[in-house]
Amino acid sequence: MRFMTTPDHAAETPAESTGVAAQDWDRASADPQYRAAVVDLLGALAYGELAAFERLAEDAKLAPTLADKAALAKMASAEFHHFERLRDRLAAIGAEPTESMQPFVAALDGFHRQTAPSDWLEGLVKAYVGDSIASDFYREVAARLDRDTRALVLAVLDDTGHAGFAIEKVRAAIDADPRVGGRLALWARRLMGEALSQSQRVVAERDALSTMLVGGVADGFDLAEVGRMFSRITEAHTKRMAALGLAA
Amino acid sequence: MRFMTTPDHAAETPAESTGVAAQDWDRASADPQYRAAVVDLLGALAYGELAAFERLAEDAKLAPTLADKAALAKMASAEFHHFERLRDRLAAIGAEPTESMQPFVAALDGFHRQTAPSDWLEGLVKAYVGDSIASDFYREVAARLDRDTRALVLAVLDDTGHAGFAIEKVRAAIDADPRVGGRLALWARRLMGEALSQSQRVVAERDALSTMLVGGVADGFDLAEVGRMFSRITEAHTKRMAALGLAA
Repeated sequence: MRFMTTPDHAAETPAESTGVAAQDWDRASADPQYRAAVVDLLGALAYGELAAFERLAEDAKLAPTLADKAALAKMASAEFHHFERLRDRLAAIGAEPTESMQPFVAALDGFHRQTAPSDWLEGLVKAYVGDSIASDFYREVAARLDRDTRALVLAVLDDTGHAGFAIEKVRAAIDADPRVGGRLALWARRLMGEALSQSQRVVAERDALSTMLVGGVADGFDLAEVGRMFSRITEAHTKRMAALGLAA
Repeated sequence: MRFMTTPDHAAETPAESTGVAAQDWDRASADPQYRAAVVDLLGALAYGELAAFERLAEDAKLAPTLADKAALAKMASAEFHHFERLRDRLAAIGAEPTESMQPFVAALDGFHRQTAPSDWLEGLVKAYVGDSIASDFYREVAARLDRDTRALVLAVLDDTGHAGFAIEKVRAAIDADPRVGGRLALWARRLMGEALSQSQRVVAERDALSTMLVGGVADGFDLAEVGRMFSRITEAHTKRMAALGLAA
């Protein structure tokens, strides 16, 4: 169950499939820069899933009940299966998975280190925020990908949304004690700020990936369009937080 | 791949299926004491898998490489799926899963607290020892169960053995530095000692489960037979450790 998701599903089925989006992997990957960008993207997503697995499993220790622990463990396990699919795809296209993930370890580990939840509710908000932002990003980026890579990214996306249960728990906690809302609102802003700052670090360091995002090898996206993508993701996040009772 | 396993597979297909072993769940569970024993057993196994998930996921943080981290995460995820099957079975037979697991939380958490690995190799040895002892125990206990419960226990058992990769890593580390073997041998003995001590605690506290193990409601096992079961499991453990280069 998803509580609130990006309303615009256009990215999943591009109205006009031109350029890379109309091609399959074999054809699109003939361009070495596009190939490098996809290896970067899959490497970043794969390590993102592996790191998410690790952190969710760790947060499961904060669970107040066995049922809550099992719910978080289930989310962690789902992330691990996403990791497997992305890693297998990397291997299938001839990229070494570990090498492909390595460039993104510092940024993702940095994000998680800076945002270690101090209690169960912070862990839930982080799981929900992380799951939602990941879904938004997958959906946005899907439109810029060849058919085969897009199918994989959307398949992994389809299987997210395990964080739905987090919403009920967070709402109940805020209902019981409204002051909790203020604290968690600050926390959610810190999560988003840290995510954006680590993303910028990655974009600055990975040429092929950034070039794909700004349209150098894809369907004519420009830098302003990337800015708008980040805006849309931030806006969707803000709306979700408001609906959750976590307005500023 | 399993490195060395209990050679005696007789327990999987009892030569003479009499008593409970010849019955299905509907018939066997008409005996309230047998029913309580199975709920205990499934509760203990379910929480064992959930706790194993949590610990393996935590140990994954000690992994020296991304491939090693992924391997441990895979084992953790497999444990989680075992948990799901056992929990679903508890629900299917009308037992509340959380309630059924609760009596075993203290013993299992105690075991893991007492045996937190201090490095990657200790984590691997623990994963291997834990996986092997669990397999041996599942196999032993299967013979005392009705057909339906036995099928579940053997299905979960079939899916273990993910710790095989641990063996290669441990052997390589001992080859590189034989002193490592001495330290890990002590560690393996401590693991087994702690496992036995927590098991005894459980056996002392859970009447229905213990009664089933000593044959009060099952196929005529006596206390000496339970002692022999523990002996067989310990002996198999010792042989595995010796084969791994971890003799005393």
